[in-house]
Amino acid sequence: MTKSSAITSMSVRAAAAGILERIRTDRPRVHCITNTVAQNFTANILLALDARPSMTVDPDEIEAFVEKSDAVVVNIGTIDAQRRQAIERVMPVCKRRALPWVLDPVLVEMVPARLDLALKLAAMRPTVLRANRDEATVLIGGDPTVELMTAFAARHQTIVAMSGRTDIVTDASRVTRVLNGHPLLRLVTASGCALSAVIAASLSTKLDPMLATTAALAIFGAAAEQAAEGAEGPGSFAVRLIDRLAAITPEMVSRRVRLE
Amino acid sequence: MTKSSAITSMSVRAAAAGILERIRTDRPRVHCITNTVAQNFTANILLALDARPSMTVDPDEIEAFVEKSDAVVVNIGTIDAQRRQAIERVMPVCKRRALPWVLDPVLVEMVPARLDLALKLAAMRPTVLRANRDEATVLIGGDPTVELMTAFAARHQTIVAMSGRTDIVTDASRVTRVLNGHPLLRLVTASGCALSAVIAASLSTKLDPMLATTAALAIFGAAAEQAAEGAEGPGSFAVRLIDRLAAITPEMVSRRVRLE
Amino acid sequence: MTKSSAITSMSVRAAAAGILERIRTDRPRVHCITNTVAQNFTANILLALDARPSMTVDPDEIEAFVEKSDAVVVNIGTIDAQRRQAIERVMPVCKRRALPWVLDPVLVEMVPARLDLALKLAAMRPTVLRANRDEATVLIGGDPTVELMTAFAARHQTIVAMSGRTDIVTDASRVTRVLNGHPLLRLVTASGCALSAVIAASLSTKLDPMLATTAALAIFGAAAEQAAEGAEGPGSFAVRLIDRLAAITPEMVSRRVRLE
Repeated sequence: MTKSSAITSMSVRAAAAGILERIRTDRPRVHCITNTVAQNFTANILLALDARPSMTVDPDEIEAFVEKSDAVVVNIGTIDAQRRQAIERVMPVCKRRALPWVLDPVLVEMVPARLDLALKLAAMRPTVLRANRDEATVLIGGDPTVELMTAFAARHQTIVAMSGRTDIVTDASRVTRVLNGHPLLRLVTASGCALSAVIAASLSTKLDPMLATTAALAIFGAAAEQAAEGAEGPGSFAVRLIDRLAAITPEMVSRRVRLE
Repeated sequence: MTKSSAITSMSVRAAAAGILERIRTDRPRVHCITNTVAQNFTANILLALDARPSMTVDPDEIEAFVEKSDAVVVNIGTIDAQRRQAIERVMPVCKRRALPWVLDPVLVEMVPARLDLALKLAAMRPTVLRANRDEATVLIGGDPTVELMTAFAARHQTIVAMSGRTDIVTDASRVTRVLNGHPLLRLVTASGCALSAVIAASLSTKLDPMLATTAALAIFGAAAEQAAEGAEGPGSFAVRLIDRLAAITPEMVSRRVRLE
Repeated sequence: MTKSSAITSMSVRAAAAGILERIRTDRPRVHCITNTVAQNFTANILLALDARPSMTVDPDEIEAFVEKSDAVVVNIGTIDAQRRQAIERVMPVCKRRALPWVLDPVLVEMVPARLDLALKLAAMRPTVLRANRDEATVLIGGDPTVELMTAFAARHQTIVAMSGRTDIVTDASRVTRVLNGHPLLRLVTASGCALSAVIAASLSTKLDPMLATTAALAIFGAAAEQAAEGAEGPGSFAVRLIDRLAAITPEMVSRRVRLE
């Protein structure tokens, strides 16, 4: 099964180059059911890569949008009745069209009902579950070691991508660790949400999803490192992150990719 | 009818100067029923011109806001039940008070129900319909040639302003083409929505609406050109666009205005 | 009662230093029921100080969030049925947990029903009511002189903080006037909303609330002055405000604090 071919720094470099080129050529539509805090920044991050974002959450419209989309983000950051209904309508479309989708369980540790929803969604086999350590801990049900992450990925037939100082990704059979990124990301609201959208755009290229996810983390992390270089704080860093993503080249990613 | 006096580069320069001065003096209130992605950026663009934005979409409040407003934007980018009801309540107020209003049919090509709403709104004679090429194509019902745009403007007694590499504006009897602008606008989410708000602010000055619309496109496009000069990408471009609009002078617009 | 000890430039400097340090150490959670225009900017301002923002307004979730929060903002900028219900559920939690909360009566002068709500909330004794002059005028019921503000603060057992060229703060027994700030703040949407969140974060330190509020105004105003120094307009000013808040030091605030 080609899906399980080993992932090396070299294959991630090649994947990143291919992803950047494919997105710029195909301009995939990425529909984001995301929180109101993240919508603007996420749209600008996707546009920087030349993807086409859409953000409506109206249950009456969302199926039509997702019918024309190439990837979907389900982010529960400001979940409410409208967004719950939208998610319900979107899930069958994703399944029927075999669309890649990314689950982002924002602040799932804060409310039991949010955890219930996230677990229900995780059971629907998102292509990728992207979470930070706190979110992963409650979702997985314990300290998110590679062993627990791998077991969760196997049980849900998903890829678990945990962001942090080192990003850890597993599809149950393989594990990658991406060292790219910058501490300033922690001070920019919705940077994790935007990263989930970058993963979704990368998945739309139909590359091996494990490879595409790892490459997306490397692309975003590499751009963040570049952005940090001239930044005077989190405000200018966020602006520069958009600039750097729009100008990113395969060569630049290649130079920067650092896997452990 | 003075409304039909010819529009020249010279009259657009004079109109732009007058609009900038009037907005800074009168500080018109522009109420925007707009999408959640665009609200913050649109508000900042209006504030840069010294207009006063308001953004509430609650049906219970919106009539009170529009009673005190000088112009209105109806943007259907994240249309939902609440916004539909808000629009219904606002339309009679706009009509009774003869308020200028701009219809922005965001992504109308994506959902049939959105097209129905946009056509219904277009039939209510917006002062200006601002759309990009894809949106204009489905609304007008064919490749948006000047002939089709003119016929649509005549039928709906509106002004059609189509944004693009060249902006084309027609009020059925006249046509203007504005060459100002910059390709980076395409990579900034809500830049079209913000432009619709700038047109609304310009219409509030009660100049000939066709002239005011053309001048608004020139003002926004000229600021975008200036913004692009020092920008490192779409992130810094968007920040600089706000800066440049806040600093714009009649002389600067005069130097930059390019009509075809 | 220590609450009524006199407030001097020296005590504000010490309070500001303490607040900055405590926020960076304790990372307080500040839950904001705020308007959709302000959410992103407010979150980034809070993160710049190392506070932890949350923004959900779903009535079904909000009690769980506020149970884990250290301070709350109630901003009525885009008030609607969902936010009204959220506020109703949050008020008892704030009371039971004795949480500091800040009321921000955005554009209360525009709609009678909004004024009713703001007065009802003011009667629930917000720790601080932060408003601009127009908002304070209608809430207090007349030109907001220090006498009227003091009477209102006494009647509602609250602190009234009116932002403007000079910020005026009173808890009925004491009055402070903060001269820090910059005119560009007026051109940045949600800068007042973000300031309310900074006050809330400062209140979470459990300092004398009158002192904490005055210090928060000094911190925000000092950062705004620094931000303005290299800004080219309101766009870059807003970005720099986030940068400067993230880099602010007790020494910098000390040098800049100007009380009247």
